[in-house]
Amino acid sequence: MADTGQGGEATGIPGFYAVVPAGGSGTRLWPLSRRSSPKFLHDLTGSGQSLLQETAARLQPLCAQRLIVVTGQAHAAAVRASLPSLSVDLLLVEPSPRDSLPAIGLAAAMLQRRDPEAVLGSFAADHVITDHEVFARCVGTAVRAARDGHLVTLGITPNSPATGFGYLKVGAAYHQSGQAHGAHLSPASQVQEPGVAWVEEFVEKPSAELAARYVEAGHLWNAGMFVVQARVLMDMIEREQPDVAAGLRAIAADPGAIDSIWPRLPALSIDHAIAEPAARQGEVVVVPAGFGWDDIGDFASLADHASPAPGQPGLRILGDQDLVISADSSGVIAPRGGRTVVVLGVPDAVVIDTPDAILITTKDRVQDVKTIVGILSSHGREDLT
Amino acid sequence: MADTGQGGEATGIPGFYAVVPAGGSGTRLWPLSRRSSPKFLHDLTGSGQSLLQETAARLQPLCAQRLIVVTGQAHAAAVRASLPSLSVDLLLVEPSPRDSLPAIGLAAAMLQRRDPEAVLGSFAADHVITDHEVFARCVGTAVRAARDGHLVTLGITPNSPATGFGYLKVGAAYHQSGQAHGAHLSPASQVQEPGVAWVEEFVEKPSAELAARYVEAGHLWNAGMFVVQARVLMDMIEREQPDVAAGLRAIAADPGAIDSIWPRLPALSIDHAIAEPAARQGEVVVVPAGFGWDDIGDFASLADHASPAPGQPGLRILGDQDLVISADSSGVIAPRGGRTVVVLGVPDAVVIDTPDAILITTKDRVQDVKTIVGILSSHGREDLT
Repeated sequence: MADTGQGGEATGIPGFYAVVPAGGSGTRLWPLSRRSSPKFLHDLTGSGQSLLQETAARLQPLCAQRLIVVTGQAHAAAVRASLPSLSVDLLLVEPSPRDSLPAIGLAAAMLQRRDPEAVLGSFAADHVITDHEVFARCVGTAVRAARDGHLVTLGITPNSPATGFGYLKVGAAYHQSGQAHGAHLSPASQVQEPGVAWVEEFVEKPSAELAARYVEAGHLWNAGMFVVQARVLMDMIEREQPDVAAGLRAIAADPGAIDSIWPRLPALSIDHAIAEPAARQGEVVVVPAGFGWDDIGDFASLADHASPAPGQPGLRILGDQDLVISADSSGVIAPRGGRTVVVLGVPDAVVIDTPDAILITTKDRVQDVKTIVGILSSHGREDLT
Repeated sequence: MADTGQGGEATGIPGFYAVVPAGGSGTRLWPLSRRSSPKFLHDLTGSGQSLLQETAARLQPLCAQRLIVVTGQAHAAAVRASLPSLSVDLLLVEPSPRDSLPAIGLAAAMLQRRDPEAVLGSFAADHVITDHEVFARCVGTAVRAARDGHLVTLGITPNSPATGFGYLKVGAAYHQSGQAHGAHLSPASQVQEPGVAWVEEFVEKPSAELAARYVEAGHLWNAGMFVVQARVLMDMIEREQPDVAAGLRAIAADPGAIDSIWPRLPALSIDHAIAEPAARQGEVVVVPAGFGWDDIGDFASLADHASPAPGQPGLRILGDQDLVISADSSGVIAPRGGRTVVVLGVPDAVVIDTPDAILITTKDRVQDVKTIVGILSSHGREDLT
């Protein structure tokens, strides 16, 4: 395990809690992921671990046992089985999906009661991050800025003018305040990531034309990674959505009340409901992410994490290479159904085989895969969704 | 059952025996057909019957119970199960594959002993023929010409300059000799198919350029359908391949000798070894086939016999329509693995799903499917061949 320089792997960053919302509809990687078994439960990259397990392993040096997972009732048992060392009281189960604000806010409300100075960092359960050392350093920087009372986000340098992400408009450089909160840290850990800055604005998913301009202007992708003190986040929720704050505090005070309160909470994203207004108030700081990041939004993206087929560099295989026979083909093949997949003369193929369903499409249609689940439902095939 | 006008369906054409060589390597329609389960054992067209059963049903009005099937040891049990009414003594089992001459020749040698005037017609077990009435009429015409002592073939009018077939160069019109042998036939059955002619030459599979010229010149495809008196065929074999004739006669006289004699017979095709020299001798007559014929040589050809997908006329489905979900796709899908096949935005797709293997290719590569079995063998996957 990498030494994070953040207080040692046994204890992690003091007072830091990692919050992992584990949700998702599982439609964009159908049939590998399903509603009943979303992306985070799968070993999509062939690492031998599910994305949730990889996420937990990446965070553990930073948060030690202070890992909180928020998931839906349908997935609670699978999360427990996936993370046997997760504390029972740190698995928060949502009675119904309410988007990211109630999920992360519930963790914040709970943490504020437990440790008023607690800093939480929220990280999706189903993203792939490479270079864990740089990730740890960025989180360390973000925690220090969070202790100054700001909402801190990790911003991703775009590698394309993607239209699937919100963007962060980066403003003036941010200068860390006094190192009072960092006094316990070793000098090595004080290395500040370059480019830490104020966020002028959160911009929603843009058009292709706008996205190109944003990339040109140096905007960053909003990957939904927020680091913030629990009490600061609760104050922001109180200000922007007082009813939500009240509901979350009531559940934190009496967890048994969740079933009566939760259904009345609105579905709100933390980006839209909190981060956007906070940025307008000059309360948001961005730490540019120096690490590799991918939300594996579709099969083309997943292909980048797969192994090239022997002798065919253009063809990636997600799974047992011995189950694939190919000639004159490129793209990505996932032989997850146990049977042999033979691909002959198909460029940019996307072939995803599972025991009960197989998807055949091409790389330029991977964004349309999410529509299949709807089509299956309309054909009465909910069993496959 | 259609009235063939050839003596009634109960007895068929008197003295006429249908010989069905049931073999084939099963490579061109892999993975639907396999070495262990070639094309003729499959219901490829969705008719509810295997191609062998369809072939037998088509011939039965012509030959009644006089149906002879010649097959390999590996398939004898499957043939028996497929055709329960086949007489035990009319299933000829080859100890090893020796191409078409020994197979058909063995039937001829056996028939000559049983009925010296017998006429045999050989028809592949795995071809599709539409318009059974016209087929029956063509066979009736061929039988009459065969009784004149000729080797008669049914020639197919090409619908394309295919390079996968041998061609027949058609010569002068053939005039039926006296109707002595047809005296028992009803007037309706005496209708002669137009275009019956002498064959000047059998030409082997041509280049694309030559094929175009042959089609232009009115040559016909050689579909390997021969009608000939048993003693005439044996005389031809005697003349061209005396050792083969001696071997076949010895087996006919003592069926128990097959295991010692058969392995010494050469693998020879009846086209090359007998029909070609016979044509040069002016002994071959062709009856142009007025019926639809297809040897289902590849998946593109098979697609023509499949049902169009609902709302997508360009997409054919070989099997249960409910197992296919498709959008913006064309080609052919065979959902034979029990699982759902989803095809999204793939033009000219060829997707053949079976329980242990799935093939994905495109229509322009269907001729290369036969190479897959070799590739599988080289990967040590004989279990899939």
